[in-house]
Amino acid sequence: MTQERRHNDGNSIDHYGYEQFQARDGGRLDPRTRELTRERSVLGDAYRLFYRTPVHLVKGRGSHLWDADGVEYLDVYNNVASVGHCHPRVVEAMTRQASELNTHTRYLHENILHYAEDILSTMPDPLDRVMFQCTGSEANDLAVRVAQAYTGGEGVIVTHEAYHGNSALTSKLSPALGTAQDLGLTMRMIPTPDTYRVSVDGIRGSQCDAATFGAWMADRVRDAVADMNRHGIKFAALLADSIFSSDGVYPDPVGYLQPVIDVVHELGGVWIADEVQPGFTRTGDAFWGFERQGIVPDLVTSGKPMANGLPTSLMAARHEILEPFAGSIPYFNTFGGNPVCMAAAQAVLDVMRDEDTMGNSKKVGAVFKAAVEGLKDSHPCIGDVRGAGLYIGCEIVKPGTTDPDQASALDILETLRQNHVLTSVCGRYGNILKLRPPLVFSEDDVDWFMSAFSTTLDSLDK
Amino acid sequence: MTQERRHNDGNSIDHYGYEQFQARDGGRLDPRTRELTRERSVLGDAYRLFYRTPVHLVKGRGSHLWDADGVEYLDVYNNVASVGHCHPRVVEAMTRQASELNTHTRYLHENILHYAEDILSTMPDPLDRVMFQCTGSEANDLAVRVAQAYTGGEGVIVTHEAYHGNSALTSKLSPALGTAQDLGLTMRMIPTPDTYRVSVDGIRGSQCDAATFGAWMADRVRDAVADMNRHGIKFAALLADSIFSSDGVYPDPVGYLQPVIDVVHELGGVWIADEVQPGFTRTGDAFWGFERQGIVPDLVTSGKPMANGLPTSLMAARHEILEPFAGSIPYFNTFGGNPVCMAAAQAVLDVMRDEDTMGNSKKVGAVFKAAVEGLKDSHPCIGDVRGAGLYIGCEIVKPGTTDPDQASALDILETLRQNHVLTSVCGRYGNILKLRPPLVFSEDDVDWFMSAFSTTLDSLDK
Repeated sequence: MTQERRHNDGNSIDHYGYEQFQARDGGRLDPRTRELTRERSVLGDAYRLFYRTPVHLVKGRGSHLWDADGVEYLDVYNNVASVGHCHPRVVEAMTRQASELNTHTRYLHENILHYAEDILSTMPDPLDRVMFQCTGSEANDLAVRVAQAYTGGEGVIVTHEAYHGNSALTSKLSPALGTAQDLGLTMRMIPTPDTYRVSVDGIRGSQCDAATFGAWMADRVRDAVADMNRHGIKFAALLADSIFSSDGVYPDPVGYLQPVIDVVHELGGVWIADEVQPGFTRTGDAFWGFERQGIVPDLVTSGKPMANGLPTSLMAARHEILEPFAGSIPYFNTFGGNPVCMAAAQAVLDVMRDEDTMGNSKKVGAVFKAAVEGLKDSHPCIGDVRGAGLYIGCEIVKPGTTDPDQASALDILETLRQNHVLTSVCGRYGNILKLRPPLVFSEDDVDWFMSAFSTTLDSLDK
Repeated sequence: MTQERRHNDGNSIDHYGYEQFQARDGGRLDPRTRELTRERSVLGDAYRLFYRTPVHLVKGRGSHLWDADGVEYLDVYNNVASVGHCHPRVVEAMTRQASELNTHTRYLHENILHYAEDILSTMPDPLDRVMFQCTGSEANDLAVRVAQAYTGGEGVIVTHEAYHGNSALTSKLSPALGTAQDLGLTMRMIPTPDTYRVSVDGIRGSQCDAATFGAWMADRVRDAVADMNRHGIKFAALLADSIFSSDGVYPDPVGYLQPVIDVVHELGGVWIADEVQPGFTRTGDAFWGFERQGIVPDLVTSGKPMANGLPTSLMAARHEILEPFAGSIPYFNTFGGNPVCMAAAQAVLDVMRDEDTMGNSKKVGAVFKAAVEGLKDSHPCIGDVRGAGLYIGCEIVKPGTTDPDQASALDILETLRQNHVLTSVCGRYGNILKLRPPLVFSEDDVDWFMSAFSTTLDSLDK
């Protein structure tokens, strides 16, 4: 999910760090765009618009978008349209079901049963229950309550720049929202598993083996739980996305989460795998992010990539973890799991298999990452390139150092936008380019991106 | 929203009170229905199925539904399909937009701007901001946080049988979820404004004028705030739906909420109008439930009836109430306000105007209520009939008393289902028939219902 910061002085700054559109800048926009920015005075100040000059999109196909003037953009940002914008099979499935029936889960319907069984078939056997919501926030909100009911504890651990949702509960577990958002009294943060900057026994994280780097992270969990206990808080769960998307994209070394989940279990907690970012074939190595890491979580949540834009999310669980909650608290989500959302989700899953989005993520992701890495020598502002499949993080630093260079990252972002490439940044310092296109991204798309990226870097070098 | 109870002994009991489907009863179902009840072992125990013999629906049109055997049902329950099941204009609007573009609110799009302005035009002028979410729970969760940021307090008041959502925060404000769900330490309940059972100065509530009954309710708010203050809790908000749906449907006397909102403001709180039930023309007297009551709330939430089943919700606000939250906390809802949800919501609003659902609610609702009342003399189990427009509550009592008769209400429900009429019950004692059809309910539909209802009552009288 996208995360933001807003300093208490009232200036709109976020994790991208760059100055987004400000109402006072409306005067330099074309009349149609300016008219649409009237939304600022209707939707209120909690809304943000990307870019100093906002984009007014009207059409999407695959990994391409068009604005109202017919200008074509390359989409290197949107993971909701996971099988490509406006995929005809998803639109058709949704339309067909919406024309027949759309109602709730208190009546029987085959769509929810079939999708539930199908999505569970993609998970390891112990994960044998699934419940449906409408947003990733709702899924995480529920998962935390389920973990708390199972453990009898309240303490939740997240990473230092995590974003897990916009509900009252999940906002308090989302340090990425910025300092104006109070964090929960019973939550603790552990450091980002920053393999670029953290060294273990003098060895940079990216050079460590999985066991060594995992042991470092596991020790951070031990520290956090010890601090919880010192405050009388019982540990309930570690909530994390296995690619650490908001923290800055840290997928490797593969296997480093095994020592961490072992400690979570040893200390009586459960592992909630927030798969909103790495799930649904994005990493190219596995259907799920946790699967790529070789761990079996206790609870799994997802949302964004699940139904290509229709509000749909899930929480999967081991039955014994779910039972203390489900056996005592009724849960009804009016729209969750309805026949139309389930039809769209099933179409997405079918397309992922039929079009082999996992294979495409792996193949094109490797080409993409190699191409970005290939610019490192000629552009020393590129400090590190990390990623798995079609999720790549590219550190923009002060040449010759690991010091984050937010200003340059923001200039790159805005220049890419002028060059009709849409992307964003992430990480604590807002200096990491977050390259996360729809899963149908092609090698031609990589060429387009690299051409725009080279031009952008060259222009900024001058 | 539908609400449930579940006793701690593990038996599935809810506000309907009747025994819903139990897995052990699967043996008597036809094979296809039995196969679908396999969902019980996949979705887990927090899910419930309506009726001892669950309904397997496959088609909906207007206020009618069909099961897999082609049997037609009259829908007297579903308020999500507000302009009728599968309304072609909504399906068409959704399909057209889904075929063009579906993305998020960080880019400009006309749909969200136009819908935001249009929906605000239905509200009184002070309500001049609107934000979009995906579910009523998300809308209420946000509204409570906004109210808390504005007032600096935490205390929230709800009625005794309220249901306001399934998130961690809103569950703690939903006594209707049953005793297994802990309520918030900073919330307080006030009694249901039960005009059938509450007397003020010896006069039954339903015979009181609005000022008298409102003063009684306002005093309950004073008591609750005094108790909050005694515990060091600052009052933030009263969260209520103006028809008190879960409590048992109490729309009258019109105007009785004015003294209550006056006290809320006097005591420094804000009024959150949960319009999930009474909004969008259902009462027949006004577009909004609060409007019918002649009050102007500080915050408004809605969800269910807004987009005919597509997950869409809103929170509207006075700008000065919203600002302390919106000016410091960023809020992004990935799917909320997306072009497809906004297209569906706009189509619903257009249909409500073009087909005059408000006029239909008023006209057909009056006929419907009069017809149900007409059975009182011949069926003394009908103790009271209340309602506004197409939301009618019918108390089933022990004849000659006001004692709730849950068992009979449940028999009526199950017999109506056998007679192909779908409805439910509500209220503290689970004895109040909740008659709440789609807004396109016709006089012919009333005839169908009354025929089935008379048959049902006659059969149970024997």
